[in-house]
Amino acid sequence: MPPILFYFDFSSPYGYLASLRIDEIAGRHQRDVEWKPILLGPIFKTSGSSPLTSQPLKGRYALHDFVRSARWNAAPFHMPNAFPIATHQAARAYYWLHDTDPDKAKRLAKRLFEAYFTNGKDISSAEAVIAEARSLDAKAESLGAALTDPAIKERLKAEVENAISLGVCGSPYIIVDGEPFWGADRLDQVEAWIRTGGW
Amino acid sequence: MPPILFYFDFSSPYGYLASLRIDEIAGRHQRDVEWKPILLGPIFKTSGSSPLTSQPLKGRYALHDFVRSARWNAAPFHMPNAFPIATHQAARAYYWLHDTDPDKAKRLAKRLFEAYFTNGKDISSAEAVIAEARSLDAKAESLGAALTDPAIKERLKAEVENAISLGVCGSPYIIVDGEPFWGADRLDQVEAWIRTGGW
Repeated sequence: MPPILFYFDFSSPYGYLASLRIDEIAGRHQRDVEWKPILLGPIFKTSGSSPLTSQPLKGRYALHDFVRSARWNAAPFHMPNAFPIATHQAARAYYWLHDTDPDKAKRLAKRLFEAYFTNGKDISSAEAVIAEARSLDAKAESLGAALTDPAIKERLKAEVENAISLGVCGSPYIIVDGEPFWGADRLDQVEAWIRTGGW
Repeated sequence: MPPILFYFDFSSPYGYLASLRIDEIAGRHQRDVEWKPILLGPIFKTSGSSPLTSQPLKGRYALHDFVRSARWNAAPFHMPNAFPIATHQAARAYYWLHDTDPDKAKRLAKRLFEAYFTNGKDISSAEAVIAEARSLDAKAESLGAALTDPAIKERLKAEVENAISLGVCGSPYIIVDGEPFWGADRLDQVEAWIRTGGW
């Protein structure tokens, strides 16, 4: 069966929360998950939206809900001081590594999320991303050059454009056999969809 | 104990879905719910937002999610042709009736939601609202005059302003002893909060 598609931005608290559960949910039903980091910036530009925390009324609620949602999910979480951050370096690193070692790419993604949302590390720079790759022994030496390679920049751009063409409007956005689910609070529905083949 | 506050716009599908469950959830824990119709227009103006269905990407997702969320909740639902609609007449009627007969006001609210989201009736006009009130024997004769009374207009305006001051940023928005929850997909959290006094 085709993999479940898991779209997220590395700067998205709800994306992080979903990342902690999505593989286990799919695994219970013998399904794989393809992680797809994207950039909310171009998506917001398309949808006419903006980061939740920058919006009057919603911003204050969101900051409260991030922490409470983490508690609800029993997930370690610390709101980073730098928020939101640029995540194109993290996403490029993911895709570059993914082409040769998908498992390690996923581990890098988990490491990046953890660094940002539990240790408060700003993971926006190439140096920060390379440091996390190094801690995984993930070809950190070549990664520095790769991050400035036009090919990998194009690759991320194409992934984001493809996501938009699929309707991805936020993070996390999960597609199960063509059925889209937006939000970490849709994981029960996601699991029911996987289990039943559509309800 | 003070009532749980249930804010909603009569034109909100997620508000409608929450309306079908909120009293039962609160009742299981011997709590009452105060229904508070508000207008998303002024709230969107404050938050810089707009109706979901008018937003690129999100609009298409929302139309799909309304129907699927109703199915998930086993709720009767039919997407109205006229959407979204003005709901100030419905909200004014609610508050006017509420001041003399709170129970009947809640029944009128349920009737209006049902007319709009299961029968596809456009409930935006004073006439449509009065017709639903008549079917409840809810002082329909006086209601016509009341809907144009400056006092009831001011009343609704004050309710909306108060909601905004409390942080209400969407529909449904439920406040349990000061704790805010936005979205029909937060009802499990709402119930856990009521049951435990905060988790």
